[in-house]
Amino acid sequence: MSKLLSQKITPSPMPAEISVVDLIDGYFTAYNSARLREICHLLSREVMKEGVTVGLSLSGAMTPAGLGVSVIAPLMRNGFIDWIISTGANLYHDMHYGLGLDLYASSPFLDDVKLRQEGRIRIYDIIFDYDVLLGTDAFIRQILKAEPFQKRMGTAEFHYLLGRYVSEVERKLGVKHPSLLATAYECGVPIYTSSPGDSSIGMNVAAMALEGSKLVIDPMLDVNETAAIVYSARESDIPDVEGKSAALIIGGGSPKNFLLQTQPQLHEVLGLEERGHDYFIQVTDARPDTGGLSGATPNEAVSWGKVDPEELPNTVVCYTDSTIALPILTAYVINQCEPRPLKRLYDRRDELLAKLKADYEAAKQRPSHPAPEPISIGVTKQPVATYPCGTPIRNSRH
Amino acid sequence: MSKLLSQKITPSPMPAEISVVDLIDGYFTAYNSARLREICHLLSREVMKEGVTVGLSLSGAMTPAGLGVSVIAPLMRNGFIDWIISTGANLYHDMHYGLGLDLYASSPFLDDVKLRQEGRIRIYDIIFDYDVLLGTDAFIRQILKAEPFQKRMGTAEFHYLLGRYVSEVERKLGVKHPSLLATAYECGVPIYTSSPGDSSIGMNVAAMALEGSKLVIDPMLDVNETAAIVYSARESDIPDVEGKSAALIIGGGSPKNFLLQTQPQLHEVLGLEERGHDYFIQVTDARPDTGGLSGATPNEAVSWGKVDPEELPNTVVCYTDSTIALPILTAYVINQCEPRPLKRLYDRRDELLAKLKADYEAAKQRPSHPAPEPISIGVTKQPVATYPCGTPIRNSRH
Amino acid sequence: MSKLLSQKITPSPMPAEISVVDLIDGYFTAYNSARLREICHLLSREVMKEGVTVGLSLSGAMTPAGLGVSVIAPLMRNGFIDWIISTGANLYHDMHYGLGLDLYASSPFLDDVKLRQEGRIRIYDIIFDYDVLLGTDAFIRQILKAEPFQKRMGTAEFHYLLGRYVSEVERKLGVKHPSLLATAYECGVPIYTSSPGDSSIGMNVAAMALEGSKLVIDPMLDVNETAAIVYSARESDIPDVEGKSAALIIGGGSPKNFLLQTQPQLHEVLGLEERGHDYFIQVTDARPDTGGLSGATPNEAVSWGKVDPEELPNTVVCYTDSTIALPILTAYVINQCEPRPLKRLYDRRDELLAKLKADYEAAKQRPSHPAPEPISIGVTKQPVATYPCGTPIRNSRH
Amino acid sequence: MSKLLSQKITPSPMPAEISVVDLIDGYFTAYNSARLREICHLLSREVMKEGVTVGLSLSGAMTPAGLGVSVIAPLMRNGFIDWIISTGANLYHDMHYGLGLDLYASSPFLDDVKLRQEGRIRIYDIIFDYDVLLGTDAFIRQILKAEPFQKRMGTAEFHYLLGRYVSEVERKLGVKHPSLLATAYECGVPIYTSSPGDSSIGMNVAAMALEGSKLVIDPMLDVNETAAIVYSARESDIPDVEGKSAALIIGGGSPKNFLLQTQPQLHEVLGLEERGHDYFIQVTDARPDTGGLSGATPNEAVSWGKVDPEELPNTVVCYTDSTIALPILTAYVINQCEPRPLKRLYDRRDELLAKLKADYEAAKQRPSHPAPEPISIGVTKQPVATYPCGTPIRNSRH
Repeated sequence: MSKLLSQKITPSPMPAEISVVDLIDGYFTAYNSARLREICHLLSREVMKEGVTVGLSLSGAMTPAGLGVSVIAPLMRNGFIDWIISTGANLYHDMHYGLGLDLYASSPFLDDVKLRQEGRIRIYDIIFDYDVLLGTDAFIRQILKAEPFQKRMGTAEFHYLLGRYVSEVERKLGVKHPSLLATAYECGVPIYTSSPGDSSIGMNVAAMALEGSKLVIDPMLDVNETAAIVYSARESDIPDVEGKSAALIIGGGSPKNFLLQTQPQLHEVLGLEERGHDYFIQVTDARPDTGGLSGATPNEAVSWGKVDPEELPNTVVCYTDSTIALPILTAYVINQCEPRPLKRLYDRRDELLAKLKADYEAAKQRPSHPAPEPISIGVTKQPVATYPCGTPIRNSRH
Repeated sequence: MSKLLSQKITPSPMPAEISVVDLIDGYFTAYNSARLREICHLLSREVMKEGVTVGLSLSGAMTPAGLGVSVIAPLMRNGFIDWIISTGANLYHDMHYGLGLDLYASSPFLDDVKLRQEGRIRIYDIIFDYDVLLGTDAFIRQILKAEPFQKRMGTAEFHYLLGRYVSEVERKLGVKHPSLLATAYECGVPIYTSSPGDSSIGMNVAAMALEGSKLVIDPMLDVNETAAIVYSARESDIPDVEGKSAALIIGGGSPKNFLLQTQPQLHEVLGLEERGHDYFIQVTDARPDTGGLSGATPNEAVSWGKVDPEELPNTVVCYTDSTIALPILTAYVINQCEPRPLKRLYDRRDELLAKLKADYEAAKQRPSHPAPEPISIGVTKQPVATYPCGTPIRNSRH
Repeated sequence: MSKLLSQKITPSPMPAEISVVDLIDGYFTAYNSARLREICHLLSREVMKEGVTVGLSLSGAMTPAGLGVSVIAPLMRNGFIDWIISTGANLYHDMHYGLGLDLYASSPFLDDVKLRQEGRIRIYDIIFDYDVLLGTDAFIRQILKAEPFQKRMGTAEFHYLLGRYVSEVERKLGVKHPSLLATAYECGVPIYTSSPGDSSIGMNVAAMALEGSKLVIDPMLDVNETAAIVYSARESDIPDVEGKSAALIIGGGSPKNFLLQTQPQLHEVLGLEERGHDYFIQVTDARPDTGGLSGATPNEAVSWGKVDPEELPNTVVCYTDSTIALPILTAYVINQCEPRPLKRLYDRRDELLAKLKADYEAAKQRPSHPAPEPISIGVTKQPVATYPCGTPIRNSRH
Repeated sequence: MSKLLSQKITPSPMPAEISVVDLIDGYFTAYNSARLREICHLLSREVMKEGVTVGLSLSGAMTPAGLGVSVIAPLMRNGFIDWIISTGANLYHDMHYGLGLDLYASSPFLDDVKLRQEGRIRIYDIIFDYDVLLGTDAFIRQILKAEPFQKRMGTAEFHYLLGRYVSEVERKLGVKHPSLLATAYECGVPIYTSSPGDSSIGMNVAAMALEGSKLVIDPMLDVNETAAIVYSARESDIPDVEGKSAALIIGGGSPKNFLLQTQPQLHEVLGLEERGHDYFIQVTDARPDTGGLSGATPNEAVSWGKVDPEELPNTVVCYTDSTIALPILTAYVINQCEPRPLKRLYDRRDELLAKLKADYEAAKQRPSHPAPEPISIGVTKQPVATYPCGTPIRNSRH
């Protein structure tokens, strides 16, 4: 439900030479092309400005396609992405590039039984040797033995450590373009995953656990850290600039929900009043009507308090393949926007979490905080809906 | 099932300045972005060459979005499209641009009851006044009274006449960029529609019929003319250049089938041996599994003889929004390809139809032609499948 | 946008024995299952009542799957479908069943090059011999030589004649269950197609035209006949029962638009005040955002006057495969509804068309009728939108 | 790629009374209806037999729709589901039913800003009070204080404990039909989630962590337990009955991958030779071509060793809404299959994990086990692909 742009359509014939920006501005006039144009405009005109904290959720096979190196890494390096929630698979396959292993663009119409016999792996139309998996697995298991991994940690720290080792290998091997993990490590961009055991990374961590590794991944640290990041997004640290939070959702799935649930975590569970993300931008092929959260709309998210009701005009969903939309919007943004200073949220995690914890403690002390009685499970209907802390849910902000 | 391209993926960071061609070549590496890249390559390297007759089928609201003027018209003018099958709606809404009427890019989330009250029409996120319809209708009814329309004709001639009048109005009004209809008229590109009564154009023709108009649209002329075009595509008229037929399918629907059925018309019905289209390129969001012809694959088309079995590598289906893919592939092709001389197939319709008819008559005279006996409806299973003329269906071309 | 049904969800464990009706009523609680339940309820409680004229549009490979015989025919015979708009393909493949030819349920994952070599045709997961096509084609060409076909006609009459011959063959061959075409003939249900040349039926008609057949299919007769049917739907001929028009849309494509355009034909083109269809029920996999009319919503149709603004609660779109939804809703309706008397609209076509024509003539005589001046193409913006006859478009019905 | 069923289509008219089984067997003949029929047949004829261990992955809003109570619970109670991987959301919303809270079937077209103001939550077309969330949250936080939760555990144990408390509440409140969680607790069906922090359950666990709770959810326990379950599935404990593993995938997302990755965990990471799941049955709307794992096909899974290459005929994907397919296949299976004895895998987790660990230790001791050298990251291409333990990957099983 992007801002109503009612402008006359004035088509002109496609010239022989045209820039990406002019192609989008002049020829993406309707349907999903118009949504993609709106995303480009919203990003370049509002989101990629100072004061906005940008969270990216990443699902779908983006890094196998090389988009970790070609698109996500430069976005981070230009300060356009402040924190990330990714599937484990996107981080695992990103490592192949960091380790100098080869993936191939091929066809989706191959004979998988034959591929299996030949020791080749297929991700739709991407093909690589089984050795790529085995080599990456061996690398992971090797570094997991190192001292820094012998403790309980969240996934931001875990991926930061992975990134450090991958970065080292890249330097050693002379890998030309840094991977997503290495870049995030260098730029202080924290990367979370909502499903730490789900991917070959998790599989290898689990194998090491069978061998006595002391590494424990604690998902609840992630829940609180991500809530703390969004909580702090309101304070821009820049005079006269209002802090805002943007959710940039590539695909859907568990990473999408993990990015969005930060807001209900703040108000529904922790009782800290909050207003929802200010920007909701999604590229997906999932539709709202078939039951998945992937396709749930910004509007539905408003009813949950995940998106601020007053910010619906700042939401866009484009239904197309991310492998098409992501390079296009990146080309647009990198061309049109000044790089932003790195926020280095990774380094500030402790500070942000401490602030969240302190405010939560304070909210609990407030006398109005009602202790809902779980014994009498039948929750009596209240005349006015309230936050857990007892504050009535505001009807409007006036 | 595009040609197997097994090439190493070598991602490099997105630069601040990048051309459309480099964006596609370097960043469209997998999934539907790779299909779109393959379409660009197939078009620019093989299809837009001499000797290839290119048929375009057009469905979905392309002209309301201005793409008739901005994309289809320049493709025609550069000789890249030789004939067209379009929905009536795309031709009707193209006329708005030719008549200087205004359409607006807006939002898909408007209140339609309110729009109805205000006299505004919505095509998803495109809005315009009801007067745009009434004005276009009045124009159509006015010109339909002219003498050239008082007879039986196919839709190519009908749209040619429409294009002539629209072209005149464009000149009179000083419309800057010509419409699809006017351009087709000028370039001799015949435009067919598979459903002549289905659209506001048909509605107005029908209204005039109530008033005594002598115009009769005969769909069977179209069936035979389009078959004749494809039949003649084999002869390139250029020494040492094999004639080929390309099907470029935007969307799906009835225009897709009408474009593809030309081949079965030649061999299944007319008994003229044929081999199917050489190129099958489709942009659609329709999937193969839900029952519509829109989503039927090039492979399935092979079983019907719509696509040559040996040409499967020259087929690509990209599942994305046409409003995204069409401007992109047009920018690529117009940048990368030399303009081709206009074939002006409109002017050659009589000649091509005469050739088809003569060869059909000849085929029927051949002694091997079996008259299938419809009395004994139960068709007995033949050991070897044959064409209607009795020729066994070749297993291979050797 | 079906009627708001806010009822408590009260799930109970699935029993070992359950009827289709109870399965739908009790277990189809949300998402597209709830839309399918709403369709069942809307059909059985409101649509399949006296006074409602039900038009069916049919696209997608329904008859190849046998659903013409198993589902559409019994719906007609019970008086639940009054008129039909079908793709030609659905009528062509229906004939196979009438002619006693065999189709097979198979797999969608076959080798089409091999199928082509073996003389087998594939429609996704349905397989049959090439001879089935040749036999059906031969039958069509044989009967097309008969006297009744030697004239200009609309598709209702054309399909009626086809149905008569198919019906004869069925009797002769002892085909157990009548085809869609034969049933429509027997029940007086007129069947239109919006694209008469698009399908093997059209291909054979075109071939006969090459041989001198006098048959001309006139699509404009169809446009006016279908508008006349919808126009007359307002008069139920039953005391105290308001006449209503229902659009039951299976799939989308050109048949959908042809069914819906009847309303704009009445008010936008003919200047007869009208209010839009009263029921809009669609089963499709086409989404609103990708440019096709197939996915256009009932809401958008309101802005065009295709659907009555006050009847939005009587619209439902279910996004699922028609091959799933159609048997389910048929089982529900045939179980829950009393058969309705046959309207035999085929027999009343002349009468209905005469009424339409007379009212059109009368409307044109009204002094308020403005002759829009096509010379001054620039339609001046009017303060109040009007119908072609000059009547202002009502803002509300009060 | 289900088994090739080439059977003649013999449609007969829909009768007024028809059972669910006859509806599916007789009228689901093609496209996705045929896939749904194949799922029903595969489940009832092969999967729901002794010796087959059935894992269910659950994503999409199934329990909000009541399907946890109405469909999943009875499937478990009949012994048809042996273990589950679910999104957290499905377990959280299932608790509402266990706690006697009310959810309502409504419309997807409501005004979310208004809903937010009224304190109502929307999941597409399901509506409930914000108090339902607050009450469920309060219940979770209350029981999390209990002693059994003060330790590190996997999600199977965590959900088992949740189920025990929910079961108690159900008894106390007189809830008529048990929830998914309570039923799993009673039947010893272990429930895993791949994303423990992602959902309101995780959010509340995280909040308790801020307050000093000792509960740590360890995802790696889950990775190893689920691998152990699949590893043991090969041993049926029944004489002359081969043990098999079935993956029943509702939706896609992270649960799908977590269910399927058990096989690569066994051979790729742990070096235990394995052959992939024997049955792969999925209901989804996700297509293979847009980058998500949700739409990845059984064929692609073969290349990864997730599915046994010889079992491709035992794989079916049905593209439709789970809310439609799940009640239908459940009605079919419960009607057609004898209940199976409960496997109570929850009780056997320690035993199965010990077996896995012992075999892993043994495999590592084997002299052929190559220690891949992560120092020399550049994995040298081996002439023959091997498992981590050094065993060449078999080309065939002979």
